Amino acid sequence: MGLTSIKINTPPPYLTLSRDEYLPVVLTVAGSDSSGGAGIEADTKTITAHRCYAMTCVTALTAQSPVAVSDVHPIPKEFIQKVLDVNLADMKCNVIKTGMLTVEAAQVLSAKLQSMAEKDRPKLVVDPVMVATSGSVLGDSKLVDVLKKELTPLADLLTPNIPECFELVGEKVEIGSLSQLCELAKRVSKVTNCSDVLVKGGHIPWKDEQKKYITDVLYVGSEEKCIVYKGNYVDTTHTHGTGCTLASAISSNLARGYSLGQAVYGGIEYVQNGIAIGCEVAKDHVTANGPINHVYAVEIPLEKMVADECFTAHEVVPKQTTASPVPGDGDFFQYLIEHPKVKPHWDSYVNHEFVKQVANGTLPRNKFRFFIEQDYSYLIDYARVHCVAGSKAPALEDIEKELVIVGSVRNEMGQHEKRLTEEFGVKDMDYFRNIKRGPALNNYSRYFNDVARRGNWQELVASLSPCLMGYGHALLNHEKHISVKEGDVYYEWCHTYLSTWYQDAMSKGKELLNQIASVYPREDIDTLITIYADVCELETKFWDAALNYSDD
Amino acid sequence: MGLTSIKINTPPPYLTLSRDEYLPVVLTVAGSDSSGGAGIEADTKTITAHRCYAMTCVTALTAQSPVAVSDVHPIPKEFIQKVLDVNLADMKCNVIKTGMLTVEAAQVLSAKLQSMAEKDRPKLVVDPVMVATSGSVLGDSKLVDVLKKELTPLADLLTPNIPECFELVGEKVEIGSLSQLCELAKRVSKVTNCSDVLVKGGHIPWKDEQKKYITDVLYVGSEEKCIVYKGNYVDTTHTHGTGCTLASAISSNLARGYSLGQAVYGGIEYVQNGIAIGCEVAKDHVTANGPINHVYAVEIPLEKMVADECFTAHEVVPKQTTASPVPGDGDFFQYLIEHPKVKPHWDSYVNHEFVKQVANGTLPRNKFRFFIEQDYSYLIDYARVHCVAGSKAPALEDIEKELVIVGSVRNEMGQHEKRLTEEFGVKDMDYFRNIKRGPALNNYSRYFNDVARRGNWQELVASLSPCLMGYGHALLNHEKHISVKEGDVYYEWCHTYLSTWYQDAMSKGKELLNQIASVYPREDIDTLITIYADVCELETKFWDAALNYSDD
Repeated sequence: MGLTSIKINTPPPYLTLSRDEYLPVVLTVAGSDSSGGAGIEADTKTITAHRCYAMTCVTALTAQSPVAVSDVHPIPKEFIQKVLDVNLADMKCNVIKTGMLTVEAAQVLSAKLQSMAEKDRPKLVVDPVMVATSGSVLGDSKLVDVLKKELTPLADLLTPNIPECFELVGEKVEIGSLSQLCELAKRVSKVTNCSDVLVKGGHIPWKDEQKKYITDVLYVGSEEKCIVYKGNYVDTTHTHGTGCTLASAISSNLARGYSLGQAVYGGIEYVQNGIAIGCEVAKDHVTANGPINHVYAVEIPLEKMVADECFTAHEVVPKQTTASPVPGDGDFFQYLIEHPKVKPHWDSYVNHEFVKQVANGTLPRNKFRFFIEQDYSYLIDYARVHCVAGSKAPALEDIEKELVIVGSVRNEMGQHEKRLTEEFGVKDMDYFRNIKRGPALNNYSRYFNDVARRGNWQELVASLSPCLMGYGHALLNHEKHISVKEGDVYYEWCHTYLSTWYQDAMSKGKELLNQIASVYPREDIDTLITIYADVCELETKFWDAALNYSDD
Repeated sequence: MGLTSIKINTPPPYLTLSRDEYLPVVLTVAGSDSSGGAGIEADTKTITAHRCYAMTCVTALTAQSPVAVSDVHPIPKEFIQKVLDVNLADMKCNVIKTGMLTVEAAQVLSAKLQSMAEKDRPKLVVDPVMVATSGSVLGDSKLVDVLKKELTPLADLLTPNIPECFELVGEKVEIGSLSQLCELAKRVSKVTNCSDVLVKGGHIPWKDEQKKYITDVLYVGSEEKCIVYKGNYVDTTHTHGTGCTLASAISSNLARGYSLGQAVYGGIEYVQNGIAIGCEVAKDHVTANGPINHVYAVEIPLEKMVADECFTAHEVVPKQTTASPVPGDGDFFQYLIEHPKVKPHWDSYVNHEFVKQVANGTLPRNKFRFFIEQDYSYLIDYARVHCVAGSKAPALEDIEKELVIVGSVRNEMGQHEKRLTEEFGVKDMDYFRNIKRGPALNNYSRYFNDVARRGNWQELVASLSPCLMGYGHALLNHEKHISVKEGDVYYEWCHTYLSTWYQDAMSKGKELLNQIASVYPREDIDTLITIYADVCELETKFWDAALNYSDD
């Protein structure tokens, strides 16, 4: 019998910052959703994605999928009692989160909590599941009474959606404005004897606004105030389990010691990312009510082990070294900018009106000033991302190329400082540290951050390329429009990108694109194309923001 | 009523590389462990930590903690049937993993799989849970027969521990050597009609070896061969749920498309990391059978949002800006090297015999050559980690300091190439790319990688400091032993670290330590102390490896 041997790494990696790690513990008391999108499954996924430890107390098993709940198997209260006893006797517990409860489960939990000394009692986050996001009614009036009498007075936070608020206050009320939503939250706090209430307004984006958005309102009883969380309305029908996920995310943040405001903010951001990114796990006939993506920021262990040079994984999962033919007959840059996905964004970018108005001098000076400020604030992010590219580059020569670019950032910032002081009279140097960052800059920087953290070296180089190549091509396209005179800051700006050293840098940039394409799996090339299109769009929007800037 | 408003980021970050992400789907058919260490809870945590999508089919609820199983609530086969029907009708499924099964559950699952066309059938990984890692017998002989007749013939992989192998082959056999373990795996494959079997030898570290280690053996029936995975024996009693975790990790890797050998390797590495890192979630009276750490590589969402400059989180969770008093009356370096945790390792490092023998010329030349080779191969990792430090540095000046160091790497490598060619006659330049990396180098680089990925800028600077400071102090301590003559490579090596530019670099290094200490939360200072001690130990071992080097 043949025998080969593989050595597992010693000592195991990742020991550095976490030996015998203290993990915050969250116990979820809820139903089980067999298809994994809601219930203790969504809770366990969320608590795990928050680097916390999950325990469960199943109140009912449900055989369900996004299409239907086909059966429910309630769990006897005696068994629920045994689970609470054994879990809370032998395990630590920072926060208890409740979801779908039977009347009996609510009573058993309430009795258990009241039997504990207040100092030993975990925090309690109650997601009063009576009406699921898909509108199906799960609860009944007896449950509402028991919740209000026996559980919510013990809770630190309630997270009802709007239909559940109506069940708790006992009537439907009109919700057409922010203040009405705040009033409703306050009323729920009163009738439930729970000081803090987060009303999830996800169901009703305001009709009268052109751009729909999500409003969640946190009523903080102790301060008689509301914190409004204004989020993104994502046009999707796949929001199954968002209520469970939000309550578990908030519970995990509270368990880790964040304040209520911080915990709620982090929870909402996590859920909205999960909805917006989404995942394909249901079959094609499932057109609605699919699950959200709980793992959008989780790295794949085996990929991480391969990326870390010293792992044995490197031998078990050999890195792709065979060169792939460079698309576009050896001119990957040309291939990219002619690709149907990229071309519309590349064309809007390199033929931009902003550059034309700088070239012919008609651009209002305050708009140019705004652009220089935003570009100045962007350069530090740009330097950081090139450092990350250096850390992921395959060889020392590639690391050094990145450092040359970072080294040039000081000089570019100097030029911007010169322009802002000489042209626009800025005196106080603190001015440069307090530039207010616009949304176009934030979106662009965040895009880089995301690719830098989770992409590989090739994906990072692809994301950095449009900035270099696009400025050069934009000025080549608009050279004929240059009518500003030498000495004018507009003239000097245009000629930076027409200079020989810049055009040289562009040809090196083209070679680098070919280099990355040759060591990138051919079947995944669409990722590089998508990145190139995305960044050309972000560059276009950066100049749009300057063109549309106004002082008020 | 007061009103404040917080804007959730638009568009949500992390969209870049994952929109409508394809997530591999793993269905776990197993019991539920209420305290979260094993069963569908451990499976869901593991599948989530592998960036896959988990579904569940609960075969029995157990009220258990590491101390005892206090109650079991079996689930009727009619309900199990409904779960399998609804899950597999509406959701995708790449792999089914089974854990604790009742006889009825095994029969329902077998019938369901056989009712599916072979091409639609998910892969099947069977963890034949009959004896838990803690030795308690859960199964019975009828279950063994049903498994062997109705389930294992459909399986792609079995993952029995040794007691479960004895149950499957129907007798206890002597296991005292690797070949006996391989024979057992082969026998299990025959009696279960399942071609591939992974026998988890975790229970028996070989007595005759001085250093205990774990042996897992994968029998690959189609090739009549065994792959032996030789891992770390971690002296801990907290291994509850390792069997479930390993089978789910392997299932997740298979679902993602890795080969069997790769999937098993990744699974074992993941489990051994989780055991070695461990977590404190059980109460103090629980001295054994606690859970492992499933989340050792998961980043905390709210921390990630704060670290990413463009997030609104940055306003909700303000970064620590107040300067803390520098420990050690303003000389953090002195404070560190006198700290009881650091001092023993610092002293062993800067008074090392290796440096003394270089200084007095008695060090055998082949040991010095080995050291130079390892140091040469280390320099690329060193450059990469300084790039990561640059990407996390607070201001451009700090980024530039890191780049100066990276810039010096080319020069240091040049010196090593000169030493190796002139002193040791190396001719072929490819030689430098194929240096075999020793364990001391791998451990040191991996430590850096871990701190670079998961630590902040201060923790990274602390981990890079001992190399700079220690070499200078070691040569100052051994200056009196320098008897080698100018022109000797040993003389030149010693005087590199006694040179004024190097001693200048050390004083800048001391300032940088004070800078990081002033912006590091005082209550967490122990992390910096631990890192300093760890790296001094790694440096000591780096020189130990050279001192103990021999050509054979």
